[in-house]
Amino acid sequence: MVTPLRSLDELAVGQAFDFGRFRMELAEILDFARRYDPQPFHVDEAAAKAGPFGGLIASGLHTQAAAFGHIIRTGWVKDVSLGGTEQVVRWPAPVRPGDEIALTAEVEAVIPSRSKPDRGVAKIRYLGKRVADGVTVLEILGTHFLRR
Amino acid sequence: MVTPLRSLDELAVGQAFDFGRFRMELAEILDFARRYDPQPFHVDEAAAKAGPFGGLIASGLHTQAAAFGHIIRTGWVKDVSLGGTEQVVRWPAPVRPGDEIALTAEVEAVIPSRSKPDRGVAKIRYLGKRVADGVTVLEILGTHFLRR
Repeated sequence: MVTPLRSLDELAVGQAFDFGRFRMELAEILDFARRYDPQPFHVDEAAAKAGPFGGLIASGLHTQAAAFGHIIRTGWVKDVSLGGTEQVVRWPAPVRPGDEIALTAEVEAVIPSRSKPDRGVAKIRYLGKRVADGVTVLEILGTHFLRR
Repeated sequence: MVTPLRSLDELAVGQAFDFGRFRMELAEILDFARRYDPQPFHVDEAAAKAGPFGGLIASGLHTQAAAFGHIIRTGWVKDVSLGGTEQVVRWPAPVRPGDEIALTAEVEAVIPSRSKPDRGVAKIRYLGKRVADGVTVLEILGTHFLRR
């Protein structure tokens, strides 16, 4: 697992991180989707069975949020995070109730601020793979403001 | 407001839509962030006051999800949605408790599938502006699979 970053300067392009795993549970899939993505294939098991995915799947926004919450809870950026400004998120395959997702990351860019020497931007590519079959279900390219 | 789409073919590049407004309430900001983005400036009002934003702000993931939930609840894509594969999301300015956000959209691309004549992809650019001062707080370029 990861140890807390003390500075943006500890990151280097190509560096890899392992965030362990998290699980997408049915109750939370339903709860999230009812609030933020109430489409039949996310909230209604019977309708989902007859729908385009042949069963209930998690909202992609939920998978994205659950992955991010998991990362934040590791404490990795707790001493350096100044928020984020952009994410490019892709959902290459559906996530189903009970799926366990293994999360890794690779540093794509480290850009110290020109105007503010105490901070800078890190671009991190996160990858989520379903543990059962290794299929990639989530990709996030995140832009983080971090302290130096 | 919007009327439900009956087909991808009803969309044309440049077409604009108005989704009305939604409000980011304190209780929900805290609830979302405790689960999915528990950083001090999202979950702890006292710490947030002393933090980088001078007060509590919503998780960007929450603003993104709340906007998407609002769109889904208008019923716009209820008869045609086959899910989404990608979002590019930007948070140009922080969102604070009580902020009301006006949401509009513009069609960027309409791409019928070559292999499956009953569906295709629409790329939609969503824009969220704080009603109080017109500042853009959210941009989403969403990729939707839609029925034809």
